Amino acid sequence: MTKRDIASQDATTLETAPTRYIEGHGIRFAYRRLGPATGTPLVLLQHFSGNIDAWDPAVVNALATDRPVIAFDNAGVGRSTGQTPDNVEAMARDAINFVDLLDLSKVDLLGFSLGGCVAQQIAAEHGQLVRKLILVGTAPKGGEEHLLAVLQDAFSKTDAPDPRLPLFFTTSPASQSSGLAFLKRAKVRQDDRDTDNGSAVTDPQAKALITWCATPDPGHAILRAIRQPTLVVSGSHDTMLPASNAYAMSRELSNAQLVLYPDSGHGALFQHHEMFVSHVRTFLDAQPVAA
Amino acid sequence: MTKRDIASQDATTLETAPTRYIEGHGIRFAYRRLGPATGTPLVLLQHFSGNIDAWDPAVVNALATDRPVIAFDNAGVGRSTGQTPDNVEAMARDAINFVDLLDLSKVDLLGFSLGGCVAQQIAAEHGQLVRKLILVGTAPKGGEEHLLAVLQDAFSKTDAPDPRLPLFFTTSPASQSSGLAFLKRAKVRQDDRDTDNGSAVTDPQAKALITWCATPDPGHAILRAIRQPTLVVSGSHDTMLPASNAYAMSRELSNAQLVLYPDSGHGALFQHHEMFVSHVRTFLDAQPVAA
Repeated sequence: MTKRDIASQDATTLETAPTRYIEGHGIRFAYRRLGPATGTPLVLLQHFSGNIDAWDPAVVNALATDRPVIAFDNAGVGRSTGQTPDNVEAMARDAINFVDLLDLSKVDLLGFSLGGCVAQQIAAEHGQLVRKLILVGTAPKGGEEHLLAVLQDAFSKTDAPDPRLPLFFTTSPASQSSGLAFLKRAKVRQDDRDTDNGSAVTDPQAKALITWCATPDPGHAILRAIRQPTLVVSGSHDTMLPASNAYAMSRELSNAQLVLYPDSGHGALFQHHEMFVSHVRTFLDAQPVAA
Repeated sequence: MTKRDIASQDATTLETAPTRYIEGHGIRFAYRRLGPATGTPLVLLQHFSGNIDAWDPAVVNALATDRPVIAFDNAGVGRSTGQTPDNVEAMARDAINFVDLLDLSKVDLLGFSLGGCVAQQIAAEHGQLVRKLILVGTAPKGGEEHLLAVLQDAFSKTDAPDPRLPLFFTTSPASQSSGLAFLKRAKVRQDDRDTDNGSAVTDPQAKALITWCATPDPGHAILRAIRQPTLVVSGSHDTMLPASNAYAMSRELSNAQLVLYPDSGHGALFQHHEMFVSHVRTFLDAQPVAA
């Protein structure tokens, strides 16, 4: 923990924490910081098209009860300035700059979807910065994605109150009901709410995700470069980035735990939020097995 | 809970609980009962060649802090009388008879390895008896096993203090060190210790496991018949019953959560015992997501 963190820590929630700004490297980053002053901060890397308020308060607030949690908008996203890059490598550089501005020397990373690609890139290239890694609903470089087909299908469902219902949840009544509960939680905040993203964000982000999956990574060089303990999580029926990605990643990573949730899609972490929080905590709190 | 359970409950450990006996259906079953009087009992189904004292006290005692846990010798095994059958179906009938003798109308099952095959058979055929199911280091009917090759390899390692070191743990220093710690825990009990099994047990058990995996199950009828919430667990590098079995089972079961542990073999639940106990608890305590 740094002086800056200790001075700025507070115990609010995702819905009530003030949005803060920090500027450097030509970008003014928007972020919120929750939880206690001490402990390794958990930095959240958001999915395609999402902003700070697209995180599930049930997940973020629960995780912040016993560790610092930082949600932020990467360059160009939400209320951060700058341009959204069209490639994962540049997004990783922007995220590193943000972490650097906060003066954090060691973090845990939780990357969801596109954010999981960024998290892999950071962990592979900046191993000393990352203590533990959580990859949710994501793909390895060269992995399998169905982003455009799934988006097209979701936006054709004009009766859905929010595209995230078909995008993030399965068609089962239980999953859809969880989806409605998630949307309700995510829409509570009214004041100082983050800005929705338009095509200036989603176009380059889509290109970045598609390119990441379309680019072979011979010998799984990125996964092999990741030495941190890693928790890989997926929904059983993720239509955008299938669970087979998660299984494959867990086979190639040197120290990965895999968790797949039943009857769930891309938003498995929101559907099974209590279980997910419990698994993340158990993983982050685990001491290394003595050799 | 039944009158019998409440009358017999005590708060001892696997190492100190008296071995009890209950007789019926022509068999005198040896068992130990730990934990509180109330709650759905968790019945443990043991691996090939194992007896009651082959369970890890670290796992059993931790699980028994907040639920009744019952470890037993199935017919012919350890200090139970009767003949060890050479097929999973008959083992399932014997286990059902044991549960019946204890007057339990609803149980959770934790089946490890061969015990996981037996647990699948019970859950598929006696759905009303089983609340939740935990399958560890096991295979579906028609699945993949390397029992004889792995046993041969393990018994050729004459320098290993116990065949379970090469059988249950990977070659990494961390895994082997966990293996030594497990063996130490499992060998604490001296008085009233369970009887080791000879070929009258292991020969038919080996035949049962090999036959189970060699017999196709068209349309995964057994997995499809299982409707209970199921937690499927495997070590990343299980050489006897590979992790691919666990992944495949989680795809076919209607309501399965999958957990794979890093750098671990067949004994992943003993190596990662704290994590495993946490995951089992989280799974068993989870309320169904409302539809």
